[in-house]
Amino acid sequence: MTRVAIDGMGGDLAPAATAEGAIEAAREGIEVALVGDERRLVDEIERLGGAPDGLRVVHAPDVIEMGDHAAREAIRRKQSSTYVGVGLVRDGEADAFVSAGNTGATFVVALLELGRLPGVERPAIGAPIPFPNGLTLLIDAGANAECRASHLVQFAHLGSSYMRAARGVAEPRVGLLNIGEEGSKGSPLTIETHERLSESGLHFIGNIEGREMVENRADVVVTDGFTGNVVLKLGEGLMELLMGELRNAAERSWRGRLGGLLIRPAARRVRASLDYRAHGAAPLLGLGGCVFIAHGTSDAFAIANALRSAAADVERGTLAALRGAMEAARPGEE
Amino acid sequence: MTRVAIDGMGGDLAPAATAEGAIEAAREGIEVALVGDERRLVDEIERLGGAPDGLRVVHAPDVIEMGDHAAREAIRRKQSSTYVGVGLVRDGEADAFVSAGNTGATFVVALLELGRLPGVERPAIGAPIPFPNGLTLLIDAGANAECRASHLVQFAHLGSSYMRAARGVAEPRVGLLNIGEEGSKGSPLTIETHERLSESGLHFIGNIEGREMVENRADVVVTDGFTGNVVLKLGEGLMELLMGELRNAAERSWRGRLGGLLIRPAARRVRASLDYRAHGAAPLLGLGGCVFIAHGTSDAFAIANALRSAAADVERGTLAALRGAMEAARPGEE
Repeated sequence: MTRVAIDGMGGDLAPAATAEGAIEAAREGIEVALVGDERRLVDEIERLGGAPDGLRVVHAPDVIEMGDHAAREAIRRKQSSTYVGVGLVRDGEADAFVSAGNTGATFVVALLELGRLPGVERPAIGAPIPFPNGLTLLIDAGANAECRASHLVQFAHLGSSYMRAARGVAEPRVGLLNIGEEGSKGSPLTIETHERLSESGLHFIGNIEGREMVENRADVVVTDGFTGNVVLKLGEGLMELLMGELRNAAERSWRGRLGGLLIRPAARRVRASLDYRAHGAAPLLGLGGCVFIAHGTSDAFAIANALRSAAADVERGTLAALRGAMEAARPGEE
Repeated sequence: MTRVAIDGMGGDLAPAATAEGAIEAAREGIEVALVGDERRLVDEIERLGGAPDGLRVVHAPDVIEMGDHAAREAIRRKQSSTYVGVGLVRDGEADAFVSAGNTGATFVVALLELGRLPGVERPAIGAPIPFPNGLTLLIDAGANAECRASHLVQFAHLGSSYMRAARGVAEPRVGLLNIGEEGSKGSPLTIETHERLSESGLHFIGNIEGREMVENRADVVVTDGFTGNVVLKLGEGLMELLMGELRNAAERSWRGRLGGLLIRPAARRVRASLDYRAHGAAPLLGLGGCVFIAHGTSDAFAIANALRSAAADVERGTLAALRGAMEAARPGEE
């Protein structure tokens, strides 16, 4: 049975949402270790009717708070739910770790305790974005604010291998997020990366502009963590803005109110289909273990989905596939 | 009377849309010079019922085609509508130049022929984005793919001064597009820029994340041209995607179809309110003359709006204000 640990204290709605999501996943047959303050977690579980088979609580007395210094703090706080949860993976007691807590803290602790795959200088966040035409993996979605071309080439290998192993895409199309069509366009970083991706043996389809990304022209869109993070957050913001504006505009007339009422189910479907929370967590790729980042605002539904998608990745042998791909490719360091 | 030159051959819908937009603006009292192939432009004008007072055609036999090499080409093609149009500003025969053609080509020619304001190393594109809470100027929206901190500080001064002079914002709030809240977050570029903006004398409100940008927390959002261009194009793509998906979802049931029909006027209003084309062109800031970039897909309505907003900027004395601000600030070179 697949064993997934989850940071019980991580995320805006923890521990209520993490406990509820963990119970849901455990009921479906995932062996879940809920890590955090034992008393609070047990209380939540009792409130929800008790623990099903396959759910256990692993005590961790300390919590990493959200905030900009979390990553630095995390290294010292060995009794935190983050540290203890990652430790379960390190010690072979869990196959994967999921956290909706501070991304930087999870990243740093995982890097320290699980190490990197061969050929990987910088592990990265792969964010699976469910565009209507298909899933696009954006890598790096925010782990590395500054990157060299060698890092981006490694992201491409990691992303490509992930989409093949975990998502069954036979020959993932790799695109480079850039601001023009030709290889000679962009920053020195993208120009060098373009050149190296052309010789990488990957199915590199060239530059992808911001507009084209939403059309799922590539299965893997490679970018530095700064741009990737801006893109992800802007996307979230724009989506909410637009939905809110539509609601406001509709409410200004009886006609709009009625129309809004009738169209609501369709609008909800669209919103849900574009909601990457529903599609599971973002894997940290390039680590020596399976770690997933869930959205900070995850509710029980999103947590359960994150646990499901972590378990599915484990069952498909994603980590071994990534390791094999990186050993075979050994994407050039500088 | 304000005299605005426009590249008659620039943009996907030129020369039909440029001629029609020019006629509309001229009818409102702007003195318009429509630059390009005389025969084709005169034909278009005849087709539309003839030229009103205040519209003249300035012949330029050559055209810069769209494409990645346009900027390089543009320098040599002195008979192009781009070159001739910029030349009118250089020679004092027009107060501003507008183009919906190749941005890179317009930028290079304008830089060459009009030079830079004092204290400006790199002129930049300021894109006015009409968020529901208010207008946000994104600078640089794509002219400089690689930037140093000194450039970003200059963008901040240019953007701030523009929002004051052209848009009447008394004390523009300047934000730095970044991936965290604290100054210590982000790339080496944003960290250094954050430090320098804090001491710039501008009303610097700190980092702005992708999510916050859409809330109009800042009047001016400073970023490098790579990130700015990705943001702008992604925004366009996402908006179209979402509207299209809503339409598709609505069409799947009678209820949705009826709702869609009723809500259509509201949806159109939202779409129009977020359409920066309706809000005029993007100024190239930091040049020794007034040059504006209109969207490549501009129709006659958008062209007329671009001409109106260029004329309005001229009438408000924006260029002199920018020059004064840059002379006073002399934002530190490295």
